[in-house]
Amino acid sequence: MLGKREPEIYGSQTLQGINETLTGIGDTLEVSLTFFQSNHEGALVDTIQAALNHHQGILINPGAYTHTSVAIRDALAAVAIPTVEVHLSNIHQREAFRHHSYIAPIAIGQISGFGADSYRLGLEGLVQHLRQIAQ
Amino acid sequence: MLGKREPEIYGSQTLQGINETLTGIGDTLEVSLTFFQSNHEGALVDTIQAALNHHQGILINPGAYTHTSVAIRDALAAVAIPTVEVHLSNIHQREAFRHHSYIAPIAIGQISGFGADSYRLGLEGLVQHLRQIAQ
Amino acid sequence: MLGKREPEIYGSQTLQGINETLTGIGDTLEVSLTFFQSNHEGALVDTIQAALNHHQGILINPGAYTHTSVAIRDALAAVAIPTVEVHLSNIHQREAFRHHSYIAPIAIGQISGFGADSYRLGLEGLVQHLRQIAQ
Amino acid sequence: MLGKREPEIYGSQTLQGINETLTGIGDTLEVSLTFFQSNHEGALVDTIQAALNHHQGILINPGAYTHTSVAIRDALAAVAIPTVEVHLSNIHQREAFRHHSYIAPIAIGQISGFGADSYRLGLEGLVQHLRQIAQ
Amino acid sequence: MLGKREPEIYGSQTLQGINETLTGIGDTLEVSLTFFQSNHEGALVDTIQAALNHHQGILINPGAYTHTSVAIRDALAAVAIPTVEVHLSNIHQREAFRHHSYIAPIAIGQISGFGADSYRLGLEGLVQHLRQIAQ
Amino acid sequence: MLGKREPEIYGSQTLQGINETLTGIGDTLEVSLTFFQSNHEGALVDTIQAALNHHQGILINPGAYTHTSVAIRDALAAVAIPTVEVHLSNIHQREAFRHHSYIAPIAIGQISGFGADSYRLGLEGLVQHLRQIAQ
Amino acid sequence: MLGKREPEIYGSQTLQGINETLTGIGDTLEVSLTFFQSNHEGALVDTIQAALNHHQGILINPGAYTHTSVAIRDALAAVAIPTVEVHLSNIHQREAFRHHSYIAPIAIGQISGFGADSYRLGLEGLVQHLRQIAQ
Amino acid sequence: MLGKREPEIYGSQTLQGINETLTGIGDTLEVSLTFFQSNHEGALVDTIQAALNHHQGILINPGAYTHTSVAIRDALAAVAIPTVEVHLSNIHQREAFRHHSYIAPIAIGQISGFGADSYRLGLEGLVQHLRQIAQ
Amino acid sequence: MLGKREPEIYGSQTLQGINETLTGIGDTLEVSLTFFQSNHEGALVDTIQAALNHHQGILINPGAYTHTSVAIRDALAAVAIPTVEVHLSNIHQREAFRHHSYIAPIAIGQISGFGADSYRLGLEGLVQHLRQIAQ
Amino acid sequence: MLGKREPEIYGSQTLQGINETLTGIGDTLEVSLTFFQSNHEGALVDTIQAALNHHQGILINPGAYTHTSVAIRDALAAVAIPTVEVHLSNIHQREAFRHHSYIAPIAIGQISGFGADSYRLGLEGLVQHLRQIAQ
Amino acid sequence: MLGKREPEIYGSQTLQGINETLTGIGDTLEVSLTFFQSNHEGALVDTIQAALNHHQGILINPGAYTHTSVAIRDALAAVAIPTVEVHLSNIHQREAFRHHSYIAPIAIGQISGFGADSYRLGLEGLVQHLRQIAQ
Amino acid sequence: MLGKREPEIYGSQTLQGINETLTGIGDTLEVSLTFFQSNHEGALVDTIQAALNHHQGILINPGAYTHTSVAIRDALAAVAIPTVEVHLSNIHQREAFRHHSYIAPIAIGQISGFGADSYRLGLEGLVQHLRQIAQ
Repeated sequence: MLGKREPEIYGSQTLQGINETLTGIGDTLEVSLTFFQSNHEGALVDTIQAALNHHQGILINPGAYTHTSVAIRDALAAVAIPTVEVHLSNIHQREAFRHHSYIAPIAIGQISGFGADSYRLGLEGLVQHLRQIAQ
Repeated sequence: MLGKREPEIYGSQTLQGINETLTGIGDTLEVSLTFFQSNHEGALVDTIQAALNHHQGILINPGAYTHTSVAIRDALAAVAIPTVEVHLSNIHQREAFRHHSYIAPIAIGQISGFGADSYRLGLEGLVQHLRQIAQ
Repeated sequence: MLGKREPEIYGSQTLQGINETLTGIGDTLEVSLTFFQSNHEGALVDTIQAALNHHQGILINPGAYTHTSVAIRDALAAVAIPTVEVHLSNIHQREAFRHHSYIAPIAIGQISGFGADSYRLGLEGLVQHLRQIAQ
Repeated sequence: MLGKREPEIYGSQTLQGINETLTGIGDTLEVSLTFFQSNHEGALVDTIQAALNHHQGILINPGAYTHTSVAIRDALAAVAIPTVEVHLSNIHQREAFRHHSYIAPIAIGQISGFGADSYRLGLEGLVQHLRQIAQ
Repeated sequence: MLGKREPEIYGSQTLQGINETLTGIGDTLEVSLTFFQSNHEGALVDTIQAALNHHQGILINPGAYTHTSVAIRDALAAVAIPTVEVHLSNIHQREAFRHHSYIAPIAIGQISGFGADSYRLGLEGLVQHLRQIAQ
Repeated sequence: MLGKREPEIYGSQTLQGINETLTGIGDTLEVSLTFFQSNHEGALVDTIQAALNHHQGILINPGAYTHTSVAIRDALAAVAIPTVEVHLSNIHQREAFRHHSYIAPIAIGQISGFGADSYRLGLEGLVQHLRQIAQ
Repeated sequence: MLGKREPEIYGSQTLQGINETLTGIGDTLEVSLTFFQSNHEGALVDTIQAALNHHQGILINPGAYTHTSVAIRDALAAVAIPTVEVHLSNIHQREAFRHHSYIAPIAIGQISGFGADSYRLGLEGLVQHLRQIAQ
Repeated sequence: MLGKREPEIYGSQTLQGINETLTGIGDTLEVSLTFFQSNHEGALVDTIQAALNHHQGILINPGAYTHTSVAIRDALAAVAIPTVEVHLSNIHQREAFRHHSYIAPIAIGQISGFGADSYRLGLEGLVQHLRQIAQ
Repeated sequence: MLGKREPEIYGSQTLQGINETLTGIGDTLEVSLTFFQSNHEGALVDTIQAALNHHQGILINPGAYTHTSVAIRDALAAVAIPTVEVHLSNIHQREAFRHHSYIAPIAIGQISGFGADSYRLGLEGLVQHLRQIAQ
Repeated sequence: MLGKREPEIYGSQTLQGINETLTGIGDTLEVSLTFFQSNHEGALVDTIQAALNHHQGILINPGAYTHTSVAIRDALAAVAIPTVEVHLSNIHQREAFRHHSYIAPIAIGQISGFGADSYRLGLEGLVQHLRQIAQ
Repeated sequence: MLGKREPEIYGSQTLQGINETLTGIGDTLEVSLTFFQSNHEGALVDTIQAALNHHQGILINPGAYTHTSVAIRDALAAVAIPTVEVHLSNIHQREAFRHHSYIAPIAIGQISGFGADSYRLGLEGLVQHLRQIAQ
Repeated sequence: MLGKREPEIYGSQTLQGINETLTGIGDTLEVSLTFFQSNHEGALVDTIQAALNHHQGILINPGAYTHTSVAIRDALAAVAIPTVEVHLSNIHQREAFRHHSYIAPIAIGQISGFGADSYRLGLEGLVQHLRQIAQ
């Protein structure tokens, strides 16, 4: 829905646009990216599990599932792939139930509030982290 | 104390080193930076108030004061200078009292968990934000 | 499962029967209806998002997801289609965790406790609301 | 005060107007209605107790007493007359203390958020319920 | 309403019957009694304030106001007449909100669960207390 | 009851005395005052509603109802007459349930702890406020 | 310890004295009494279990175990002998942890605050209850 | 993911291996088993509903959904097929949010902490329960 | 008291009967068993401490002490003998205070809800665990 | 920062202006005033301690420290100089964490919501209090 | 169990060794000591009650009962013998339920975290306190 | 302020006197002491950080900062110098907010309630601890 609705919260860039921007940044950073988007918690869990042995890092915006999904948390903990959690909006400025994240405690770190730029910062932070632990 | 103690939490880079790195990034981004560090909540408040009309953005790691200082929050809200909150460690992996931030609700966004790299990401996010609102 | 089980809570009318009744009421009210039922939170989110620009109102019985789904709430908020929340049973007479609704704060209103009649009342309330805001 | 103040919350119809509308609907439904309004919790309790053996159903908007009056709840439970609770505003969108109702757990159901139309929906739901249990 | 409704909770004796029984017990104990019953919190407060210098003890069944009325508590505290709180039902077996009493902390004691007999026990306890402090 | 009981909490001045003092201050401030006192929540609500279009400001000591009355809060919000809340005692030194006020969030301000002088300060603050907004 | 210590809380009568008084009242009521006192939760549980088929009623002052002993509660529930809970002091005037009783929800009723007289009132209430259910 | 990851929590046996073991035990107990595994809450709900009239018992390890899924609870309550809840790990030794189960209150019983052996114990307990109620 | 009272909660088998059944199962499993039952928390603690160097496993139904006894927890933790916690009833279906166990976090696992069969399942789970760690 | 920022919350008068106004009022009331302002909690504590034997009353606006500083509370309690707490804004209309004051329970009273006029009212209340206790 | 188990928490000194050390310190301080150890809450209560008129001070390590025993608290309050509470481990570093002590509020003071040395410090503090109040 | 004010809470000895006593005890124990006192949280943090490599142990009475200062906690954790926390008063007998210490979980132990003697006991405990870990 990104870019169509509630731009005062989520910004006006579309998910398509963000993906293209990230691909460009990925090229600069010399990493290749795969994208996945779903409204289904179970599909997200499937995809995370399938990432094992295929991906070195996960950049995730769990959206509403940030606050309710133990299943996504457990999937990320099980595959143990370094993960960065990002949010377009500043979740600390919104309803109290959005202040808690099930994902953050098992992630490298959390970035929220920078709009579409949260993805760029998250990708840079993830790649930097992966290169540090690879040394 | 940075770089001397508890490197498993805070990393091994010194504050001095971080400042130098940030200055370099600032040069690349064509912004100039001023640094301030203090253990005194009041001194931090004084400095924030003094920033009015002198600085365009604030990058702050409020450390322990993140969780206890309404005074720093009020100072930031009063000067209304765009602020980014950063943390070296992932505060969501630590004691429950560190999950709450008085600062985040009045900041642009929050970045935590990337070690010294949190500062770099925060600076990039802040500069990007300032350029967007300046358009 | 409606009409097969726990009639003391949910009444003895089947979902099929309710849909037929609603279609009849829709005819009287001169509105046309589309039905969707799923046990999948993600499918409900997909359907809500797909309703954008195709439907003018949503009548939803979120069932168990009333109390756990931030994703459905966010989908409804994103499409901003006027929504009425209905429940067959009186959720305030049941377990404490059923007293809280993630959906109600972003809906026009909530109706609970009238059995299958909750749908009829909800549809009437929704149509009345849409006609008022259309004036 | 209805219709005079805070129309953005309570709508612009007066209580007088609502009563007249309800009388008309009552005629259509072939039921006769008696109205009572008071700011006094005790007077509401007296009236509920006096309804025993005189009325078959109660349609109540307990207003502020929804959230504070165990006395009204106990009076309704004591007379055991089927009761429907209605609210003009969507109480789930307002302050947290308005989310809890002492009345709802001993009512047939609760309707909130449809403005003056909440009364009509409540009356229809109540009459339908009384006819069902009379079968 | 006593004796008419919910006898499984409140017993089958009427308030009239209880008052007559209490008058008899009062005769035996050589004390004279005045009765007051109201559904109005304010009327109860007025009556308590009017008791100052006219009555030596108060036997009160605050009913639903037990759990919600700071005004009755403050009136009893202000007149400082020794007070015994009684309940027909065992309030500790009912909903959680009935476990707390605003009155008990400023009363001599509390008696609950003995049906109409709670009044007799309360009267005996009150008279005994008044005679002890009068020594 | 004022002046008769618990002078260590409420001071020794009677309500009569306070009213006379306030009338004198009103004369000095060139405002005329009307007094109302009741133990009945409903009567207070009636009086507040009746004040609409007749009074420009309300100085209220809601006593015990401060902590329990949503009805008084809603009445004050509905008439939208500028209101000042005063308390003889310092409510923050007493039982925890007295620390919360339903009235304060919809008042101009709250004054507590100055004994009878709270009324004088409240009247001065109210008149000053009314003159400021009248400019 | 009764009668020796803290008479301002527990009164000055000894347990011995209370037992003698109760025996006298028992004679008047034509019931025979057995006494048991122990500081051991387990011994209290043993005694309650041994009462099955030997005693028709239990009058218990669970003292400190009122607030902590699920074992005594379960023993009383298991033998299902009608039980009255009494307290010398008014437990609602003391520390918050004394306001909750594990015993009261499975007792006929609770009496607190009348000093040694609590036992007499409790015995009378228990005997009256046993005679009523025996009818 | 079982057997691949976090063996210190979940043991080293694969789900495949567990299923084979259970089939063998089923043979011994003279019951036939059907297996279903999904990361999708909705698919689990679908499968539970489809079990009505086809299966006599359900042995479920709800994993992360134990703590978040009202939908699975409601599906199990609706089909009313005797259900046993099992967990590989001891959920009481892990994060506080894992101590609460939405499923347990509507199950026969809960078994946690025995690794793969939890399934065997659960199957035995379920079969024993079904045979007892079949007598 | 087992088998005498509240069979709808605890089943109709006596503790004697359960012990005999367990002895039979022990023979099959080639383990020897010692039984201990007490209503005294202290006696349970003594027995647990005395088990050090004499027993290899503990199968415990802590009954009411499950929810209140830190002493039993500490004794089990101190002797560090592998322990299985069992309950006849499903503690998750009962009062909220029974949902929490002080024992479970220091046990291998917990089994509840299978009536007398909980003991058999617990014994099997314990023996299986002991044989696994003995390998 | 007063008068420069957020005038919708704090009003447009500067601290300088308030001090001058207060000096004038002090002259009228025949009291002399000393002013102190600091962003440093420790400096405020030092100043309060230094006031012992030099000042007869303290008028304090603890700002953000109202809600976080036990140190200022303890300093005020230690010097035992009569203190009045004032706030420019109505703290009961703002975030929940601003509703609690560490200072109020050890002050004479609290005044909030009258803008700069809160200082005048507080000074008058303080002087009146000091003259009363001096009688 | 002291000295045998969990030395990383409780140290390696036995209770016997501690008692001997304390006797030596007692000799130096010219006080005589009596020792008592029990796993039975009731036995601890009996012993405390028996200390009345026989002992001048109590040095107690209530162990697990610190957190659950109102009975021990009440016994100590009843005998009113000056008491010092000691703990071998630092209870503030352990599970949250160990942070609360029922004993500390009625003790002179509390010492925790110094291993066997806690007893020595406690004895010195107790003796010093007794000598001060004896002056 | 020590010795001047509130001697019923803090005793009558001055800080100067305590320091002299401690110096004497330090001589006996053959350790040298440095003293620091400040009302400034930041100054305390500075001093703790400066202690690194200069002091072997820290004896701290954090006063009001015990309950509010994460900064002091973090400073102590960062320097990792063994620390003992002492309090003159028994913090468990005072307001609830004083029962929690941010410092205790990262200290060796905590001593409270012995007046000025708390310092002596704390020093002895600290020196004993340092000598043990030095072995």
